[in-house]
Amino acid sequence: MELGMVGAGRMGAGLARRLVRAGHTCVVYDPDPDAVGRLSADGVAGVGSLPELVAALPKPRAVWVMVPAVATGAVVDDLGRLLDRGDVVIDGGNSFYRDDIARADALAANGIHYLDVGTSGGVYGIERGFSLMIGGDAEVVERMDPIFRALAPGVAAAPRSPGRSSAVEQAERGYLHCGGAGAGHFVKMVHNGIEYGQMAALAEGMAILRNADIGISARARGERSVPIADARFYTYDFDIAAILEVWRRGSVVSSWLLDMTAAAVHADADLREFSGRVADSGEGRWTVQAAVDVGVPAHVLTAALLERFASRGQGDYACQALSAMRHAFGGHLELAVPA
Amino acid sequence: MELGMVGAGRMGAGLARRLVRAGHTCVVYDPDPDAVGRLSADGVAGVGSLPELVAALPKPRAVWVMVPAVATGAVVDDLGRLLDRGDVVIDGGNSFYRDDIARADALAANGIHYLDVGTSGGVYGIERGFSLMIGGDAEVVERMDPIFRALAPGVAAAPRSPGRSSAVEQAERGYLHCGGAGAGHFVKMVHNGIEYGQMAALAEGMAILRNADIGISARARGERSVPIADARFYTYDFDIAAILEVWRRGSVVSSWLLDMTAAAVHADADLREFSGRVADSGEGRWTVQAAVDVGVPAHVLTAALLERFASRGQGDYACQALSAMRHAFGGHLELAVPA
Amino acid sequence: MELGMVGAGRMGAGLARRLVRAGHTCVVYDPDPDAVGRLSADGVAGVGSLPELVAALPKPRAVWVMVPAVATGAVVDDLGRLLDRGDVVIDGGNSFYRDDIARADALAANGIHYLDVGTSGGVYGIERGFSLMIGGDAEVVERMDPIFRALAPGVAAAPRSPGRSSAVEQAERGYLHCGGAGAGHFVKMVHNGIEYGQMAALAEGMAILRNADIGISARARGERSVPIADARFYTYDFDIAAILEVWRRGSVVSSWLLDMTAAAVHADADLREFSGRVADSGEGRWTVQAAVDVGVPAHVLTAALLERFASRGQGDYACQALSAMRHAFGGHLELAVPA
Amino acid sequence: MELGMVGAGRMGAGLARRLVRAGHTCVVYDPDPDAVGRLSADGVAGVGSLPELVAALPKPRAVWVMVPAVATGAVVDDLGRLLDRGDVVIDGGNSFYRDDIARADALAANGIHYLDVGTSGGVYGIERGFSLMIGGDAEVVERMDPIFRALAPGVAAAPRSPGRSSAVEQAERGYLHCGGAGAGHFVKMVHNGIEYGQMAALAEGMAILRNADIGISARARGERSVPIADARFYTYDFDIAAILEVWRRGSVVSSWLLDMTAAAVHADADLREFSGRVADSGEGRWTVQAAVDVGVPAHVLTAALLERFASRGQGDYACQALSAMRHAFGGHLELAVPA
Repeated sequence: MELGMVGAGRMGAGLARRLVRAGHTCVVYDPDPDAVGRLSADGVAGVGSLPELVAALPKPRAVWVMVPAVATGAVVDDLGRLLDRGDVVIDGGNSFYRDDIARADALAANGIHYLDVGTSGGVYGIERGFSLMIGGDAEVVERMDPIFRALAPGVAAAPRSPGRSSAVEQAERGYLHCGGAGAGHFVKMVHNGIEYGQMAALAEGMAILRNADIGISARARGERSVPIADARFYTYDFDIAAILEVWRRGSVVSSWLLDMTAAAVHADADLREFSGRVADSGEGRWTVQAAVDVGVPAHVLTAALLERFASRGQGDYACQALSAMRHAFGGHLELAVPA
Repeated sequence: MELGMVGAGRMGAGLARRLVRAGHTCVVYDPDPDAVGRLSADGVAGVGSLPELVAALPKPRAVWVMVPAVATGAVVDDLGRLLDRGDVVIDGGNSFYRDDIARADALAANGIHYLDVGTSGGVYGIERGFSLMIGGDAEVVERMDPIFRALAPGVAAAPRSPGRSSAVEQAERGYLHCGGAGAGHFVKMVHNGIEYGQMAALAEGMAILRNADIGISARARGERSVPIADARFYTYDFDIAAILEVWRRGSVVSSWLLDMTAAAVHADADLREFSGRVADSGEGRWTVQAAVDVGVPAHVLTAALLERFASRGQGDYACQALSAMRHAFGGHLELAVPA
Repeated sequence: MELGMVGAGRMGAGLARRLVRAGHTCVVYDPDPDAVGRLSADGVAGVGSLPELVAALPKPRAVWVMVPAVATGAVVDDLGRLLDRGDVVIDGGNSFYRDDIARADALAANGIHYLDVGTSGGVYGIERGFSLMIGGDAEVVERMDPIFRALAPGVAAAPRSPGRSSAVEQAERGYLHCGGAGAGHFVKMVHNGIEYGQMAALAEGMAILRNADIGISARARGERSVPIADARFYTYDFDIAAILEVWRRGSVVSSWLLDMTAAAVHADADLREFSGRVADSGEGRWTVQAAVDVGVPAHVLTAALLERFASRGQGDYACQALSAMRHAFGGHLELAVPA
Repeated sequence: MELGMVGAGRMGAGLARRLVRAGHTCVVYDPDPDAVGRLSADGVAGVGSLPELVAALPKPRAVWVMVPAVATGAVVDDLGRLLDRGDVVIDGGNSFYRDDIARADALAANGIHYLDVGTSGGVYGIERGFSLMIGGDAEVVERMDPIFRALAPGVAAAPRSPGRSSAVEQAERGYLHCGGAGAGHFVKMVHNGIEYGQMAALAEGMAILRNADIGISARARGERSVPIADARFYTYDFDIAAILEVWRRGSVVSSWLLDMTAAAVHADADLREFSGRVADSGEGRWTVQAAVDVGVPAHVLTAALLERFASRGQGDYACQALSAMRHAFGGHLELAVPA
């Protein structure tokens, strides 16, 4: 098949390369001509504008939009003006699923189809394949099936689940038509919410291991004290890289996330390279808001998101208020150090 | 009655002054002679050593220990050697209730009584009276009743609860024999756990109010952004001091804590004086551990404690691990700023 | 002044009665004629329809809407058609502040003013006064000042805060113009969020106290066990009503909420009357969503909301999933009891 | 090597079988003779008492204890009386690491060695190998190396981590000497804490997906309502089994836990077999208590534990207290249904 790709960043480039390797044709546009040029060696043709991209594709056209979430709306609007009845716009970015519903409605007014595709796989996707969660009309998803199948990891990427012995289903190939407009990004949103929780679980456990020396370490001095009665129970100087490595084989917490973390900690157990100011994206927030809307007590997913806020100092005012209260009723002084 | 007081710090001095004002006699010992001396103007006699304190008291003696939790054990041990059968040791500090059980057992071997008294009231106690939660044998509590009654706020400190129209009970006078050894500090421990939760609830609400300007303020730039679609809903520049003040009258959240916070924020709404590195004491931690022991899902009390840990940077390693994971699977860079 | 009141439920009736007692004139409409009739003995005139209400008021009219949140939009729309330029609509219900912004805009197109007034005080408001948080244009708030002043508790309802010794400010009288459209309900929303947190803190602490007997009680049997090594530390049979009562005087957690809870527990410490399926309203949810929007790590307010979801069984599917996982990797069986 | 095994339950039997398959000799004792008998077909010799087990082993002996945590102490004490200087006791169960320290000290008084070995792998361990986290003296761990190596999954169980290109280290074979006495169970404890968090993250996400139909489903009626304005955004009827399956290939959340959950949900997406009353074991609780001791803000691991408490109804009293408060200040009635 022939696909137009808008966006030649890390994800867009990876998708394009994987498609071309699978024998599909891919034309790419990106405002940055260098990003486009880097793809030509891999057999991905490049164009210099959105109209050129549209002109270069056979009808009915299919255009995959892989741009930062903040830019997606404008690109989809532009495509709505350039494309013709029967064409398909695929949003593979991290859009809010409610925006998908609105965009699908708007394009449908001109007979243009819209699919929302949550795309997971990160920088490894080009080799491992991308996990694809798809929303939109069934017949359009069916039309694009060769593209999705080429991008997805394929059934061989994992052993088949016990109980799945008959014909291989779509989900087992690594992509899934999840439902109508927005369904793909809804599922991707929840996926990322889970990802936040799993990351936080592992990170918190690592932090407990690291502080298991608090009975003997210099960190035990000052405010970070462990009660004297318990100090002798915290005298372990753990090799966290080795611990993560041992968990990779045979343990219940083995996971791809653990694999990657083990490698990172092996490189530097102190993680000095990293600031610890952790960004969050829309999906984590939208997951929490969905949980609140539907009334699911998602304590873990919520805590994982809020920890990221706190990592960026956004809880400071609340903490100053706590200090002020402690001062008011107990005379405790937790003063700011004069600059 | 005549009471010996060990400790002339903020709390010990307050207790001694309130007792003397009520017509009791109080002899105080503190390793800091200046602290002892400051009390003489208020009619509190001072001595220079623990043996002198014991010698100055009529039998059966009663000695109230009001020293930092870390020093309580040694003082109680010393008193165990100095006192006689029938004397009473009262620990009014913030001891772990399990230590009370051990101390009561140890003193009982020599016929010495032990009461544990959780004492709330902070710096205002001398005027408002102290809320007292008492553990130990009933007859000993009864013997010390005049002291407790003098220290407690008295029934007039609050309107009687609907349904309490008959004879005034002990609890309504502001002190309570809660149960056997450790019961007083157990109840005080839970009291402080609740205090943590209420403080955090108020502080978090204040922080939301303060950030309600994020759609228009400079803080909206950079990583602390609100989605553009929502920015127009966060354009409020609230007067937090006035808001706390309005809540003090007639609202469901009116409380003594609110009263004190309203005054602090009125003094400086930016709370610049305070570092926001919030200490925690044993009670908050023991409350969480008790909740875990007895299996109560105390999400709020736990979160309030953990927020204090995070305020002191103790979550940094976990957050660095999150950054390392994000870098590993997504190529996101959250690098430390080179020193 | 003369005020029209739409809604004669618990809150609307309370507001009307308090206004009439203060010498104002109040005309009320409610679809339930009995509710209207019950107010006539208190000097509140009643009418049988919204147009009659409008006709009964002098220009410029002021109409206070005090109906369930779900009905507010329709009433405000109706008033928009019935009122004239210069009239004022006041929404005293629990509306979402973003709806206020839309309603204020819609009414402004016809020159009609709109104020949003978060109203706290519950069933006690008629006697204690209502805490009022007001959003809208300053001159309109000023025009309605006599009404707000009459409804609010007044400065005498609490001691003035230290540092507030000059002229009494509006907030000290128990009402506050918080900002533009939506500001009143935004502040009320956060107020309720804090209320959720404070309620949960107290309730969790009570639950720990209640389970402090787990080392000796029948509840210790079966799955709800405490480790044998610790059982002797949980042998307290606390009188929770007495404990709450003692905290009412002199303790740091004294609050109006504590006062009411002490009375309820005094009536029945087992709280058998109550199901424990706790409802939540919009404010609690909106507070969490606002915290997520502005990036404040409000762990406590969030946990308090989620606990209510769980109380209604809405976490059951997630827990079944946990059981399924435990069965899958560990062979643990947590089977449903056959019906 | 020759190893004595105490305990022929699921885990003990699995360890014994895997050892024998690898060419080691294993003698087993269990109070249940049937459990012992079932192992004879696999070449595991059985004895009828602990003294017989000790008599059957060559010196220096090595005895692995694999019994329920509550029974471990007594078995280790018995072995302390039966064994000789230079023998080794290995505790492979889920003991509290502080008990290991005490047991190691007690046995050392008689020259008997003690190793604590956290063992992960569940029912799959016999085929996949067991992940082993080991505490104790280095020379004793070295002596037992053939046993550990045979039980562990081996380096081939996972691709080597990037950056680990030189000689295969112990951790890469799936077992690790973590530190002195207690270190093995400390690491296993944290492992299980992480496991709780990862399980909860996945379960919560599944629950959000399942309730994404709340805008159209029967569950939307009654108290479980979504605001009308948002109902149209929750009309998805997701195939959760297919979604978990798609995540198994290429997504960031792929993990062994996901593999098992996908199979369970494929068998029954409604999980009707499971009660949702989720047990917790010591490790989850000890992890939280360690986090509190060392001051790590482990919000996620804590929330995951507390959710299990709530799943068993242990939050009910707190929720009844919330209902009582709502009734007291707002007149809301959340009454228990009469039996």
